[in-house]
Amino acid sequence: MSKSLIVLTTDFGVSSPYVGVLRGVIAGINSAAQVLDLTHAIGPQNVREAAIVLADAAPFFPPGTIHLAVVDPGVGTTRALLYAEQAGQRFLAPDNGLLSRLWRQHPVQRLLTLDRPEFWLPRPSATFHGRDILAPLAAHLSLGADPAAIGSPRQERVELDWPPPTCTPGRIAGRIEWIDAFGNLATNVPAELLADGPQDGRLRIRCSTVEVRGLCRTYGERLPGEWIALLGSYGRLELAVVNGSAAAVSGGRPGDPVDVDWT
Amino acid sequence: MSKSLIVLTTDFGVSSPYVGVLRGVIAGINSAAQVLDLTHAIGPQNVREAAIVLADAAPFFPPGTIHLAVVDPGVGTTRALLYAEQAGQRFLAPDNGLLSRLWRQHPVQRLLTLDRPEFWLPRPSATFHGRDILAPLAAHLSLGADPAAIGSPRQERVELDWPPPTCTPGRIAGRIEWIDAFGNLATNVPAELLADGPQDGRLRIRCSTVEVRGLCRTYGERLPGEWIALLGSYGRLELAVVNGSAAAVSGGRPGDPVDVDWT
Amino acid sequence: MSKSLIVLTTDFGVSSPYVGVLRGVIAGINSAAQVLDLTHAIGPQNVREAAIVLADAAPFFPPGTIHLAVVDPGVGTTRALLYAEQAGQRFLAPDNGLLSRLWRQHPVQRLLTLDRPEFWLPRPSATFHGRDILAPLAAHLSLGADPAAIGSPRQERVELDWPPPTCTPGRIAGRIEWIDAFGNLATNVPAELLADGPQDGRLRIRCSTVEVRGLCRTYGERLPGEWIALLGSYGRLELAVVNGSAAAVSGGRPGDPVDVDWT
Repeated sequence: MSKSLIVLTTDFGVSSPYVGVLRGVIAGINSAAQVLDLTHAIGPQNVREAAIVLADAAPFFPPGTIHLAVVDPGVGTTRALLYAEQAGQRFLAPDNGLLSRLWRQHPVQRLLTLDRPEFWLPRPSATFHGRDILAPLAAHLSLGADPAAIGSPRQERVELDWPPPTCTPGRIAGRIEWIDAFGNLATNVPAELLADGPQDGRLRIRCSTVEVRGLCRTYGERLPGEWIALLGSYGRLELAVVNGSAAAVSGGRPGDPVDVDWT
Repeated sequence: MSKSLIVLTTDFGVSSPYVGVLRGVIAGINSAAQVLDLTHAIGPQNVREAAIVLADAAPFFPPGTIHLAVVDPGVGTTRALLYAEQAGQRFLAPDNGLLSRLWRQHPVQRLLTLDRPEFWLPRPSATFHGRDILAPLAAHLSLGADPAAIGSPRQERVELDWPPPTCTPGRIAGRIEWIDAFGNLATNVPAELLADGPQDGRLRIRCSTVEVRGLCRTYGERLPGEWIALLGSYGRLELAVVNGSAAAVSGGRPGDPVDVDWT
Repeated sequence: MSKSLIVLTTDFGVSSPYVGVLRGVIAGINSAAQVLDLTHAIGPQNVREAAIVLADAAPFFPPGTIHLAVVDPGVGTTRALLYAEQAGQRFLAPDNGLLSRLWRQHPVQRLLTLDRPEFWLPRPSATFHGRDILAPLAAHLSLGADPAAIGSPRQERVELDWPPPTCTPGRIAGRIEWIDAFGNLATNVPAELLADGPQDGRLRIRCSTVEVRGLCRTYGERLPGEWIALLGSYGRLELAVVNGSAAAVSGGRPGDPVDVDWT
C-alpha cells in the first residue's frame, strides 16, 4: 500500500498556477506526500474527457493511490463532492460523472459524500473547491485519515452515458472517443471485438472520408504520412497517421462515427 | 517548518527543458529537496504577471517554503539578485519588482543582496542565473544554510506600482489585473470594497462593452455562455463567462478599466 | 550517487496523460523514486531535437541519474532499446540516435540491448514501450537492479550526423541547431571558435536577412526589440531579440545557415 501517492487530474491548463497551489496546500498538511500529475490539459469543463483519461490511466497506478480529480463546472452549487474506493485506489472528485467511466470497470467499494468541513481549509471559497476542500482531504488521507471521518455514506451518483459500439455480423459501428497529443484517434472499439474477424486487408475501417484496410501492429510498419489502424496501448482500435497527426489531417473529433466491417 | 520545499515560478515556458535543468542542479546539491512548480507560463519577461501570481499563491504554501522566482530580463546586468524573508517564507528572485506585490501584503523581515559566490555553480553564465546562482542557493538553503552566509543586508529594492482602485461614493474604478487559464478576468477590486453596496441587480459592473448586473456566488448559477461577476477564489472581483472564456469573448486584457457602480 | 533520481524526456506533449502513466508505473515499483521532467515538449518524432536537449542538460544532473528518454517513432519495430552508461549517468532510450549527441561528449562506458522481459510489465503493448518496458526498467534500476540483469552487451548503435561548423580564416559557417521557448536561436558554433577573433563591431553574424555586429554579454545590454548575438548559457553562439522572439521575428528554423566573419 503506497499510502502517500496523490495523483492530480484537472482542467486547470498546463500554464495554470492553480496546480501549484493545490500542491502547496497538500505540502502544508503532509510534507512527505508524493504528488504527481496525470494531466492538467483536460479541455475546460470537459468532464467526459477527464473520465476517459482517468479510467485509462488508473490501472497503471499502485494500490492505495489517491486520485484528486477536478473538472468542476458546478463548483459551489448543490453538486456533491465524492470519495470513492475502487480496485484498491481512492478517488476524490465532484459528482458530475467524472468517475463514471471507472465505475464501468470495477465495482465501487465505498462511496461517500464529502460533508465534514473539519478537514477543509477554513472559509472555503465558492469557486475553488479543489484547493479548499479536495486538496486538504487528499493530504489528510495520505496521512492515514479514516475515510469514515471525511464523509457520509452515499448511494446515488451521476452517471454519464458510455455507449458501447453496435455490433452486427461482420460490422461494428463505433466512434472516436479521445484524441491524444500526437493526434491519434482512439475509438471505443475494444480489441476483443476484432479478435474474431480478419486482421488483414479484408478488414475495413472508415472514419469520415478516411478508409484504412487491415490492422498494423505499430506505427513504424508504414511510411510517414500513411494512415493506419492499430490496437492502441489501452487495448482499443485507433486510427493514426504515421509520424503525423490524424486529428489535424482529418479534422476528426470525439463523437465522430467509426465504421468497421469485414467480409 | 518544512525546510526542504522549493517552489519554482518562471517565464521559461511549459515546454522548456530549462526547468528540468534547475531541478537537476537542485537534486545534485540536495537529493532530498522537494521541488514543485507554481507555474512556468508567466509571459516572457512579464515581471508584473509573476508578481501577481506569486503574491496570490504564497499564502497557500507552508512556512519555510523557499520560492525561486525567475523572470529576469535584466539577467547579467547590474540588477541585483535578492533573498527576502516574509511571513515565514523565503524568496530568491531578481530585484526587478517581482517580489513587490508580496511586499504590500507583509513586512519584509530580511532582505539580502546575493553576493557570495561560494554557493553558486562555478563560472556562472551571464544569461542563466536561475541555473547558476539561484538554484544552487535554493538547494543550499533547503539543506539548512544560514541566509547570512549567502548575501549582504540590503535596504533599497525595486518597487512596481500597484495602484488600488479609485473609490467614490457608489462607484469604484478598477481594472483587470490578471487572466487565468479559463479566461476569467480577475480585477484589482477586493471583496471588502463591495461589502457595503448591494450585491443584487442594483450593482453594475462594466468592462469595455460588457455590462453585468449583480454578483453570483459561483459559475454554475448561470447558464453556459452568460457573463457573470463574482468574488474569485483570491477574494477579488472577477468577470467570467460560464463554461467559456471571458478573455476570448471580450478581448479583455490586463490594465483594461473595470467600472463598478450602484445606486 | 543519487540512485533514485529518474529524469523523463519525451515527445508526449505537455498536455499528455502518458507522462503521468509513466510515473504511475515507476511509483508502483519504487514508491521512493524521485522523478522529474526534463521536457515533454520535444517535437513529435523529433529525435534530433531530443538528442540536443538531453546532451545539453545532462551535465547538470548528478551522477547516478537515470534518464528515461522516449522519442520513438519506431516503437514496436525491430529497432532496439538501449541502456547506456556515460559520465556516471544512466540512459534508457530507443536506438535511433537519441543518445548520439551525448556520445560525442563522453565515452560510453557500457551499452546494452534491453532484451530481458523479466522486469517489463507483463504483455507489453507494441506501441508504448516507454510505459511497458522503459519505465519499469528505470524503476528497477532506481532500486539498485544490476544493469547486467536487464540486457545483453551490444556494440552497434545508431548515430546521427552532428556536423561541426566549417571554419576558414576569419569565417565560420554554422547553423541554427535549436530554438528555446523564448525564441532564441541557438547555433552549433561553440564559444571556443570565437575566442581568437574580435568580439566588437568587427565581428559580423548573419542569419537570413539578419545581420548583427559584435557580441553582447547578456540580453539586457541592448534595448527591447534589438537583435543581439551572445554566447548562450550552454556555451554556444546564440542570436536573440531583446525581450522578443528571434524565431518569430525572423522565421529562423533549425538547420538554417549562420555565417560569422571578421576582418
